[in-house]
Amino acid sequence: MKYHVALKRVVVALLVAVLWISAASGQVSTVTDECIACHASVTPGLVDNWRKSRHANVTPAEALKKTELQRRLSADSIPEKLAGVVVGCAECHTLNAASHKDTFVHHDQQIHLTVTPKDCAVCHLVEARQYEKNLMSHARKNLVGNPAYQALIEATNAPHVFDGAQISLGPVDTKTNEESCFHCHGTAVEVTGKEIRGTDFGDMEFPKLSGWPNQGVGRFNPDGSQGSCSSCHPRHQFSIKGARKPHTCSQCHKGPDVPAYKIYSVSKHGNLAASLGGESKYEEVPWVVGKDFSAPTCAACHVSLVVTSEGDVISKRTHQMNDRLPWRLFGLPYAHPHPASPDTTIIRNKEGISLPTSFDGTPASGKFLIGKDEQNKRREAMQRLCLACHTRDWVNGHWERLENTIASTNLMTLTATQIMQQAWTLGLADPHRSMFDEAVEKLWTEQWLFFANSVRLASAMMGADYGVFADGRWQMAKRIQELNDYVTFLRVTKQSKP
Amino acid sequence: MKYHVALKRVVVALLVAVLWISAASGQVSTVTDECIACHASVTPGLVDNWRKSRHANVTPAEALKKTELQRRLSADSIPEKLAGVVVGCAECHTLNAASHKDTFVHHDQQIHLTVTPKDCAVCHLVEARQYEKNLMSHARKNLVGNPAYQALIEATNAPHVFDGAQISLGPVDTKTNEESCFHCHGTAVEVTGKEIRGTDFGDMEFPKLSGWPNQGVGRFNPDGSQGSCSSCHPRHQFSIKGARKPHTCSQCHKGPDVPAYKIYSVSKHGNLAASLGGESKYEEVPWVVGKDFSAPTCAACHVSLVVTSEGDVISKRTHQMNDRLPWRLFGLPYAHPHPASPDTTIIRNKEGISLPTSFDGTPASGKFLIGKDEQNKRREAMQRLCLACHTRDWVNGHWERLENTIASTNLMTLTATQIMQQAWTLGLADPHRSMFDEAVEKLWTEQWLFFANSVRLASAMMGADYGVFADGRWQMAKRIQELNDYVTFLRVTKQSKP
Amino acid sequence: MKYHVALKRVVVALLVAVLWISAASGQVSTVTDECIACHASVTPGLVDNWRKSRHANVTPAEALKKTELQRRLSADSIPEKLAGVVVGCAECHTLNAASHKDTFVHHDQQIHLTVTPKDCAVCHLVEARQYEKNLMSHARKNLVGNPAYQALIEATNAPHVFDGAQISLGPVDTKTNEESCFHCHGTAVEVTGKEIRGTDFGDMEFPKLSGWPNQGVGRFNPDGSQGSCSSCHPRHQFSIKGARKPHTCSQCHKGPDVPAYKIYSVSKHGNLAASLGGESKYEEVPWVVGKDFSAPTCAACHVSLVVTSEGDVISKRTHQMNDRLPWRLFGLPYAHPHPASPDTTIIRNKEGISLPTSFDGTPASGKFLIGKDEQNKRREAMQRLCLACHTRDWVNGHWERLENTIASTNLMTLTATQIMQQAWTLGLADPHRSMFDEAVEKLWTEQWLFFANSVRLASAMMGADYGVFADGRWQMAKRIQELNDYVTFLRVTKQSKP
Repeated sequence: MKYHVALKRVVVALLVAVLWISAASGQVSTVTDECIACHASVTPGLVDNWRKSRHANVTPAEALKKTELQRRLSADSIPEKLAGVVVGCAECHTLNAASHKDTFVHHDQQIHLTVTPKDCAVCHLVEARQYEKNLMSHARKNLVGNPAYQALIEATNAPHVFDGAQISLGPVDTKTNEESCFHCHGTAVEVTGKEIRGTDFGDMEFPKLSGWPNQGVGRFNPDGSQGSCSSCHPRHQFSIKGARKPHTCSQCHKGPDVPAYKIYSVSKHGNLAASLGGESKYEEVPWVVGKDFSAPTCAACHVSLVVTSEGDVISKRTHQMNDRLPWRLFGLPYAHPHPASPDTTIIRNKEGISLPTSFDGTPASGKFLIGKDEQNKRREAMQRLCLACHTRDWVNGHWERLENTIASTNLMTLTATQIMQQAWTLGLADPHRSMFDEAVEKLWTEQWLFFANSVRLASAMMGADYGVFADGRWQMAKRIQELNDYVTFLRVTKQSKP
Repeated sequence: MKYHVALKRVVVALLVAVLWISAASGQVSTVTDECIACHASVTPGLVDNWRKSRHANVTPAEALKKTELQRRLSADSIPEKLAGVVVGCAECHTLNAASHKDTFVHHDQQIHLTVTPKDCAVCHLVEARQYEKNLMSHARKNLVGNPAYQALIEATNAPHVFDGAQISLGPVDTKTNEESCFHCHGTAVEVTGKEIRGTDFGDMEFPKLSGWPNQGVGRFNPDGSQGSCSSCHPRHQFSIKGARKPHTCSQCHKGPDVPAYKIYSVSKHGNLAASLGGESKYEEVPWVVGKDFSAPTCAACHVSLVVTSEGDVISKRTHQMNDRLPWRLFGLPYAHPHPASPDTTIIRNKEGISLPTSFDGTPASGKFLIGKDEQNKRREAMQRLCLACHTRDWVNGHWERLENTIASTNLMTLTATQIMQQAWTLGLADPHRSMFDEAVEKLWTEQWLFFANSVRLASAMMGADYGVFADGRWQMAKRIQELNDYVTFLRVTKQSKP
Repeated sequence: MKYHVALKRVVVALLVAVLWISAASGQVSTVTDECIACHASVTPGLVDNWRKSRHANVTPAEALKKTELQRRLSADSIPEKLAGVVVGCAECHTLNAASHKDTFVHHDQQIHLTVTPKDCAVCHLVEARQYEKNLMSHARKNLVGNPAYQALIEATNAPHVFDGAQISLGPVDTKTNEESCFHCHGTAVEVTGKEIRGTDFGDMEFPKLSGWPNQGVGRFNPDGSQGSCSSCHPRHQFSIKGARKPHTCSQCHKGPDVPAYKIYSVSKHGNLAASLGGESKYEEVPWVVGKDFSAPTCAACHVSLVVTSEGDVISKRTHQMNDRLPWRLFGLPYAHPHPASPDTTIIRNKEGISLPTSFDGTPASGKFLIGKDEQNKRREAMQRLCLACHTRDWVNGHWERLENTIASTNLMTLTATQIMQQAWTLGLADPHRSMFDEAVEKLWTEQWLFFANSVRLASAMMGADYGVFADGRWQMAKRIQELNDYVTFLRVTKQSKP
């Protein structure tokens, strides 16, 4: 019976393969043809999705013929073997086989399961290089290499047990970490062994991976690289259209810690994208402002190559992204000049802790954070985009408010921190075990992690209520009052304990 | 003056009717023509909306000519009277007139206001039968027949009065229930009498209904049936396209108790649907994975007939829905193997209470919940869909994390419950009056009703921050600490009371 | 180098201008041509966006030829100078130059930066007049002219400082106000001076504006008018399609104080708009219910000219909006009959405070709020729209529930207010300094500002969980219990203070 099914599948697969080869005019490589021969029936959704992709329909050689502005790949030259065939299964999953610890022999081919930025760099070299300078490619490394963030992870993910009097925290399990913090930040994908699995085509051997599946932006890959291009360019259509839409960014930038998407969606930009985005052309390279799109999405201001209808470049494509960000709005615990290196584990504040600011708000020293000149350069780079649609007075007014808001939210963080420090001093909470595990500490944490961040992002994107009543200024003010009352309740309660 | 308007309307209505009859080539039944003659001007939006529907444009006889996979109706045969005409007003609103308590004479026809699953079953028999086995068709019955849920309803909806010292709860009014819990779960639609109403065509008699309007999934209908097909297939277009989009499910699955839609929207699946769904064909039957759609929606995995481009069936259409769910992620108060019967009022935990788990986490006995074998069968049925686009190691890794999360969230529920039980034991709250009406009890309730549910759904759909900072693990951990502090505040306060 | 860039730009600009003039068949005015000559390269996104607009493609003279129902402008006649050219830069930005304090000379033209309702009224007279009667045009005035609202602003936006024992509030800075409350309500745009700025075309003088940028609905404009049409019709495409989509309203109506968009999105109407809105025609005037659109958006019920397919008017276009609202659901602190005048600063409750209701729930006297007759008239106007798609029993049942909910949420507000008043009486909070600045006061405020509002809007739009678990009845009930506990904690804490 199972044999019967398998036989039927082989026949269908062969038939599909024949049809496919004839349709694709010889541009699909022989090895990819072989992959498709079975996978069209084994993982049909995956294969049919790939068929819609530009990868499946254009060879690198053809792609290189475009003008520089129109070009979608950035390596100066493409290895001969790859240039003349479309980018299929084998082209990516056999690249750099030797450096991939997850490489295994599958139907006589050296296949690896993960495709990494190093693989993509064969054609998209500039983007891969830029991405290495992006904080995102270090998203895992920066978490696991920083004791302060480790404490936050534990206070969030650890099992909590109650013994009738006290709550104690057990060790965090890996699977929980993988689907919480590391879902976005990236897991460590490692080969832990091999296993034989029964398939429709008989028993086969596959590598066993830990940390899998995952497409986090700072994933540790089995070839030693960091990141995952499919975080934003999901497999196997790899659509630029998708990457340019705000929903892609929303996957990791919507929660209360970084409510960027929520805020964008109530901004004028977000409204225009939602209401009139259907009229935009999300596939064009370069992307003509006002013509191809009127409603800027996240990508328009932070990533894409944007030009005027006369072909003048307003902003170059970047996958570093933070090269237009003078400030890091994300408070740790205060907003601060952007880190100079994407590796933030090297940062030390004046107390020697791996945080970009001290508890009194002082930024870490100049070697760790960018200086005024770099800030000005980045601000100007971003403003060039603003100025494509807005006048100078509009842009200046907007940025003055943003920088005012950085100061005012840092002040509200300072006040909450002073109350917290008093509680620590009075022994009403214990910062030595962890700064994040007690209720009162969590109240303090949300002040900067949720509310101040929300207000700043609302300021940056003109996102109305996220700066007021939706985890905004109302909550910042309320939290300071609540925190103070809570500390009082703790003090009185402690004194009254039997 | 009023007479004048009425006359004008009659003339217009006749004219419209004539035009309509000639356009529709005799496929509209005579009785439906008569309905339209007036209703095109009385409820023009409703009629014009129906005209866009497949019901208005295809007769059952034509629909039956499709191949089995393409067919959209499932009864073996259709009554002769219905087969040759399109499905218009009269075809549905006069069906099974005798069993409808809301039937009344209207222009010489036996009309009923509500159309029920029993009516739809005349053509869509299999779907109606499957839906009877769906928890959703029992959504009202399971609420009103369970004292524990009744207590939750009262604690939520009852008017709260303050006498200067104490808060007391008054009786819940029906209208409030109807537009809160029963909005989704379904009201009881009952005929309470008749009334004469003035219309543009003179005075007419209509039945008076209680519990109306409502389209809740477990609605009690005047013909004794349960449910409402228009919950997901809203009148009068009844679009399969609409039902396949996630917004339909979001109507009842977005709030903090079941944030399925929110989580989906930040998952890779949800991003693809939002970003690239415009390229999908949402009308095709059967639905070809990878070709008709690349971004799975709720319906793709839980309901629709999904096939490969070669026509192999990956999953059959089901309106039972839970036949692919090994676990019920929704905690009551713990996640547990899916109930064996859609009627959950019969369940008793080991303490004899109508809940699928005990307060210490023990599931109710085997006859009430499905066993390991059925769980495995259901898991495999769901995984067949996963495997259409993902490899086996991906799918296994994902499911291992989900089942790990069920265990870890159940633990966090247990800890909160132990703290709650201690407060009950100490007399700091009173579980006998209600387990849900005091502030501390509500804090406990949210631990499993909001946070644990959110984390599990985030795990099931890879929905990032809903498992962490957005009603996720951060809130689960925080709530345990808060709850413990709160119990302490209550204890000290009680001792200090004058 | 800079000179070189400028020269290149001038050449490009001239070239573009020539091409543009030839393409536009002489309908663009000479002055607008001059604007475009430079601005096509200076603000290319803005100019290209305008080119997509109806303004750029239809002259008022042509627009006036439409039938009355089809017409999109409402002035009886259009000044000759404007009638024959499309509506370009100069047509709007030089209108009524004398009354604009922000007028300045720019390339020999009297240009003003802001375009105001008074300017738009030249062609859209009826809409501008209606909007003056809309609460929204008074959104700023009503805030700044009301001491109670001023106290709320301060308690939200003021910097909070901790001296080691007490929290004190500093003065609110203007920029913070501008990007929080006044972002939606409107800033005061005032000319504060002039400045010389270097541009690609040399140094130029521009007016300096305070309160800029802003597009709040009640903006104070430099010509003395109130409001901003681009709140809902954003520059420079001014799309009716955009204004008719719910995302536009969501910009200011999504937060916890007015979660209208969130609620709409889980209503049947919202689901239909999201799922099937792609089939709707959002550009048609008049808008045919059931044909052009089946899924009502905010605009469909509150603003647009809606007709039947026979051309019968169901509801006239209105920019007053509240002319179909019998109740103001927004609690201050109780829901109440709609204010009679859009200027609510004149309202006095029986205690003489500028609020439409007293703390015991009594509405302000009859001259300030509309009476039963006006309420009935407005209810009927709204119900005419409901009845286009729903039967009378449906509509009546829906409205009975809504009015029941107004009563039940007002009761839950009263209970919370009684607890709050007791705390004030006991000296546990101080209402004289501010009613909104202490934690316990903020808990009370959220009862009516967040939860009761959410429940009422959920009732009005059948928005399920926003009436239950998503800032709904669950939270209303919980807050009453929490508030009572909190007052007890404060009392005991105060007694125990060392």
